[in-house]
Order: sequence, then C-alpha cells, then structure tokens
Amino acid sequence: MAIKKIDGGVTAATGFTAAGAACGVKKSGALDIAMIASEPAAKAFAMFTTNAVKAAPVVVSMARVGAKRVGGIVISSGNANACTGAQGVTDAERMCETAALVCGKADQEFLVASTGVIGTYLPIEKILAGIKTTGRLLSRTGHTAAAAAIMTTDTVIKESAVEIMVGRQPVRIGGMAKGVGMIAPNMATMIATVTTDADICRQALETTIRAAVEISFNCVTIDGDMSTNDTVFVLANGAAGNTHILRDTKAAETFQAGLAVVMADLAEQMVRDGEEATKFVRVTVEGADCYGTAKKIAMKIAESVLVKCALFGKDANWGRIAAAAGAADVEFDPRTMGIAINGLVIMRDGGAAIDNQPALDAAMRERDIEITLDLKQGSGAASVLTTDLSVGYVKFNAHYRT
Amino acid sequence: MAIKKIDGGVTAATGFTAAGAACGVKKSGALDIAMIASEPAAKAFAMFTTNAVKAAPVVVSMARVGAKRVGGIVISSGNANACTGAQGVTDAERMCETAALVCGKADQEFLVASTGVIGTYLPIEKILAGIKTTGRLLSRTGHTAAAAAIMTTDTVIKESAVEIMVGRQPVRIGGMAKGVGMIAPNMATMIATVTTDADICRQALETTIRAAVEISFNCVTIDGDMSTNDTVFVLANGAAGNTHILRDTKAAETFQAGLAVVMADLAEQMVRDGEEATKFVRVTVEGADCYGTAKKIAMKIAESVLVKCALFGKDANWGRIAAAAGAADVEFDPRTMGIAINGLVIMRDGGAAIDNQPALDAAMRERDIEITLDLKQGSGAASVLTTDLSVGYVKFNAHYRT
Repeated sequence: MAIKKIDGGVTAATGFTAAGAACGVKKSGALDIAMIASEPAAKAFAMFTTNAVKAAPVVVSMARVGAKRVGGIVISSGNANACTGAQGVTDAERMCETAALVCGKADQEFLVASTGVIGTYLPIEKILAGIKTTGRLLSRTGHTAAAAAIMTTDTVIKESAVEIMVGRQPVRIGGMAKGVGMIAPNMATMIATVTTDADICRQALETTIRAAVEISFNCVTIDGDMSTNDTVFVLANGAAGNTHILRDTKAAETFQAGLAVVMADLAEQMVRDGEEATKFVRVTVEGADCYGTAKKIAMKIAESVLVKCALFGKDANWGRIAAAAGAADVEFDPRTMGIAINGLVIMRDGGAAIDNQPALDAAMRERDIEITLDLKQGSGAASVLTTDLSVGYVKFNAHYRT
Repeated sequence: MAIKKIDGGVTAATGFTAAGAACGVKKSGALDIAMIASEPAAKAFAMFTTNAVKAAPVVVSMARVGAKRVGGIVISSGNANACTGAQGVTDAERMCETAALVCGKADQEFLVASTGVIGTYLPIEKILAGIKTTGRLLSRTGHTAAAAAIMTTDTVIKESAVEIMVGRQPVRIGGMAKGVGMIAPNMATMIATVTTDADICRQALETTIRAAVEISFNCVTIDGDMSTNDTVFVLANGAAGNTHILRDTKAAETFQAGLAVVMADLAEQMVRDGEEATKFVRVTVEGADCYGTAKKIAMKIAESVLVKCALFGKDANWGRIAAAAGAADVEFDPRTMGIAINGLVIMRDGGAAIDNQPALDAAMRERDIEITLDLKQGSGAASVLTTDLSVGYVKFNAHYRT
C-alpha cells in the first residue's frame, strides 16, 4: 500500500480552494478568518466535542452535517463563540450564509467553526466583512493562509497531505489543524479539517474517519481539559474520478490508511506545538489484555501531572509512572510490569531496575521521550502522545486572558 | 447534637498513647517513625488506595485488618516501601512484629503504613531500631510528635479531635493526617489515622467510617494523582464506657457526625498545605439531579489544569469553569447554569454575567476562593476542596527526587 506524502494541505486534493484573511478579531492584526470551498460540493462528515457545554458553531455544524453535500467551511479564530446563547447561534448561522453567498453557492450548506476565548459575543460585522474578503481570495494555493488563519496559541501552522492509489487513479487527502492547549481525548481545543477528492460512499467515509480519528486525534492529550469547540471536519468531493469506494473493501482500507497518516501527522504536530512544552512524549503500553486497557493506562500516564512535572525536571521517575498506571481503573498484576524510557530499562518485574544511569540521564535530556510500559499479560497495545508540564505552561495559562 | 472541638489529636481518646522518633530514613534528621498504641486492644477498620499498584504496607495491613482487635499502628515516613516486591512485604511485616513486641503486645496484630519516595527498599535495620526507640516514648502527650513523624512534603502537622456525647457519656474521636502532593479522590498520597474510645459495634463502625470518608477525604484533590500508599485507619477501643453503639441508631448518627468533623477538618488542613499552593479552593455544585452528578462535576472542575492555572493567575475565568463542568461526562442543560466566585456572579443562564468587576478582581486576590456552580436542575449538591496550580508546584515536583 503506497502512501506518498505530498504538499498542498487542504488544497492538495482536486477541486478545493482555500484562503485566509485578517478581519480584526485578533488585536495583533494576524489572520483570523479561514475558508475552504469545494467544487463540486462535497460529502461531509464531522466529529465534535463530547463536552456537554458545546459552542454555538458546534451546535450549528452538527445540525448541518447530514445527507446534503456542502459547499465549504468557514472558520474564525480569536473568539470561540462559546457560552454565547441564542445570539451565538444566530451569529454562527450568519457566518455560514455569508460564506455560501460570497462563494456563489447560496443554495448550499456551509459548515462553521470558531476557536479562541470563551464567553464573548463575536464581533459579527467585522467577521462577515472578513468572510467577504476571504471569499475573494480563494485559490488553489491558499492552504497556507487558511492554516495560519485558524491558529490561536499555536506557534506554527499544521498541514499534511498524502496521495494514495485507488485502482490506477491517484487520490489526494490533505488537512490542516490547530491546537494547542486544552487538548484532551475526544478532541479538545482542536479544529482539524481534512479534504479529499476521493469518490467514496457515505458509509465507508464515516467508518474510515471514525477509525482514523480513534488512533490519531483521540490519542493525544496536553492537559486533560476538553474544550467546548473541538471539531474534525472531513469533506470528500469525488473529483479524483476514482472507482467509487465502498465499505469493507480493499480500497476503503487504503483510504483509511491514508486518512490515518494525515490525521496522525496533524496530531503529532499539535502535540509538538504544545503550549510551552519542553518535551514531546510518546507513551506506549504493550502486553495488556486488549487495546482498550492499554489505551486507558497510556492515557492515565500521559495525563498524570506528577509524571509530566518529572519529565520537565528530566527525572526518570518510574515510581510515578507505575503509580499512574495503577490508577487507570483497570485490573492488572503489577508484578510482571516493566518500564523503559527511550529503550533503557527503568523497571523490571514490578521493581526498580536501572541498568545504566548515565545513559538514562542523557536520554532524559532529549526533547523526544518514549515511555514504554509492558504488562506482559496479553497482546493489547496503544500509544498516546503528550508533553511535559512546564513552568512556562502554568505562567502562560495563568495570564492567557490578560 | 453537640460536637465539641478538643485538643489531643490521636491521644485525645482514652487508652491511646503515641510517639514519634527519628531513625535516619530522612537525611535531615527529622522525625520519621510514628507509633500509636491502644490499651485495651482496639477494633480496627481501614480504607485503602484503589490503585492497582499497592505498596507493601498496604498489602500487609489489608491482610491484618479483620475481625481481630489490634494493638496499634506503626508508620514510617521518607520511604514509601512501594514497588519493592516480596522484600517489601517482609519488611512491612517485620515492622508490625517489632512494634507489637516493643509494646509488650507480642500476641497482638499491629497495622503498618509507610509514605515517601517510591521504589527503594526500606533501610529496615534503622527502622526496626527506630521502632524500639519509639515504643519506649509512647505517652498520652505523644500525639504531636507522632503527627510530625508522618510528614513528608507537609509543612505543618495536621491534627483534629472532638468530644461527643453518647447518652450521658463523653466519647472522644481524634486524628492525625499527612498529605500533601499526589492527593486525589479515593485517598491519594495521604495517610490518616483516627482513634476513638467509643464502644461501637463493628457494623456501625464500618458504615459510619465509609460515610464520613466519602464526604471528607474523598472530596479533596490536589493534582488528580492517586498514590500507591493511601490509607485511612480507624481504631476504636471502647474505653469511654459508653452504651454500646449499634448501627442505624441515633448514637451511630452522632458518632458519624463527630467522625465527619474530624475527617473534614484533617482533609481541609491537607488541602491548605497543598504543595506550593497559593489558593485554597472550595468548588460547590448545586442544583444537580443527585449527589453523584454534583460531585462528578465539582471534581472535574477541581481537577482542571486550566482552571487551576487561571486561579493561580487571579483570573475569574468562568469559561474554563463551564468547559470543565461540561467535560464531566454527565448530562445537563448548560442554558440554566450559573456560576459565582465568593458570592459574586460571573455566569448567569449559561452566559457571561459579571455584575461587579472591581469586586471580582478583589475577590480573586483572596487566598480562599469559593466557586459555586448552580445547574438549577435538581437538589443534588456536593463540595470538593482543591488548590490552584502554581509555578512553584511544577518546580517542586520537577525536582522532588534530586
């Protein structure tokens, strides 16, 4: 199965245009309105935050994602339009309508997302003016500007794209994403948009997206907080002209693999850009009785404040790792447990076992840390990406609004 | 129901003696062995960490707490005797046996706990010598030394005691505890010991302890981490000579109220001594459909890293509070939700509603913060105690071992 990395982000796939513009939501004057349009209109599927407190654009997009094809997506940054009641919903709907109108697709649905500070009404007139500007800028090379326009506390844009072969026909899948605080399982302060020119049936699209999201976006955590705005959009416009992909076929498998590469790449970029992080950490649990158990333990370790503080302090504190694993609310026998950091054993058979302290000290100074915990009780395995918890993170989040 | 606060900690109740000594586990030379003895031997009940990785003393005490009366408890600090395998269990058993012997109670069970760094074998010869010293120091006034000898990163000793009336007979309930990091629901790095001279049946003892622990120790969280060593011991020796307390009686209710006062007092002292905390925070959720829902939401807010960073930054960030509430994995309608801080409204009917910004700014500078969230959907209510997340906490826990 050949999966080739390509350039182009959300406009890598045929038929997609994108743009970004500044409309003044961000005081800095940075880009804050992104648009993506599809010609022809695309099948859309999305996954949203499971937070009981959902932002207005989430409510609006949830209602709009259905059987009908959509013309595109509009995303604003700097203000999340969350906890804004009926006014927020009206504002989000006006964003969709204006975007459709400016793209000459007045009869089509647009989807909407917003990200930023919670609890303030959108400066809607500025935003509608911004949407009009953005609509005029839509182009096949606008992916970078769009990716920049969805950033909040992100320090770099996040894009990825691949080309796969469906039969003899090349098919493109590309995406952009923003993080970077409040990232937790089930998609916290994250907005990701993936576009593809695949011709694929709705069932196959949903199944492959759910599977790819589970092992990518749902396997990252920065601080265990889940936002009100998390959304993953996928648009599929069929412009590649490939043989129609059906569910449970070899072609669907190939498509899912390509989707997973793009999503995992975006997820990794989000974690690497974690707010004030000094470490990029992959926690892998092996030897569990099933995937679910492995993931629960990996997530508990990745979310442990004490483990994250130790990583910031370059301390291979296996006791905290073992204690976090034990707190995952799953049963296992700790007496066979082994833990390694960057391949160096630090726990064996449930007890301390540091074979090479100087090598371990050197490993802890690396930016990339791989924690591997083996329960030796089955074949279930899972990986979760996270960061350390730094002094800078606390300072940053203590004063984010001021 | 008169509950009178008294002095005396774990020796406030008749028949209990206590002592603390230094045996060299702590390099600083601080007290590190505590003992409590009961004459006559006491009924014992204990609640332990639910962590799958249990320290050796937890395993040993779990096996010893049963129908048999116990002679006392021995606790060492500085080394947790956790992740120490079979050797750890042998060491913990030797601690119990030596303690019984030195108290002249060779035929009786002793219970054991240890707290401190994980994953290093106890310096057992030092500890056994320390137990012998401590046994000779047991006295009616040794409660303060005992409370000091169980401290790890605690900065102050934690004691509480009350006198209640059972019929016409005064009955005493006293306790000591240590925190202060790794404190989470279901009793994380915490050891608490409560002694009482009540004459009470085993069933009533267990029922009242479970109820009192639920609303005290199980309602505090510092960092969401759960330790391998958490234990709450209760010893009841019957020396008060009161009318035997039976389950589901008025007397049991009085006893439970007294127990809850002591435990809640110790729990509050633990949170107030939270590692490098700058805020003492009580999160109260009201108007939920039941206690369980209210507690889940309160705990989620109290554990939110972003909420805690905002509190450190003196920022009344109601959006983060609302987002954390929504992430509690319980269903509620956010449109009726209201939030107040120290009585000042910051959210009303699901939207921003700051009536008095200067008063709010002043409130955020207080050390004690009370967050009240009202769902207006029922009569369920619960409170959880926590701290902010400070720069000092991260620095402290990054370098705890070094």
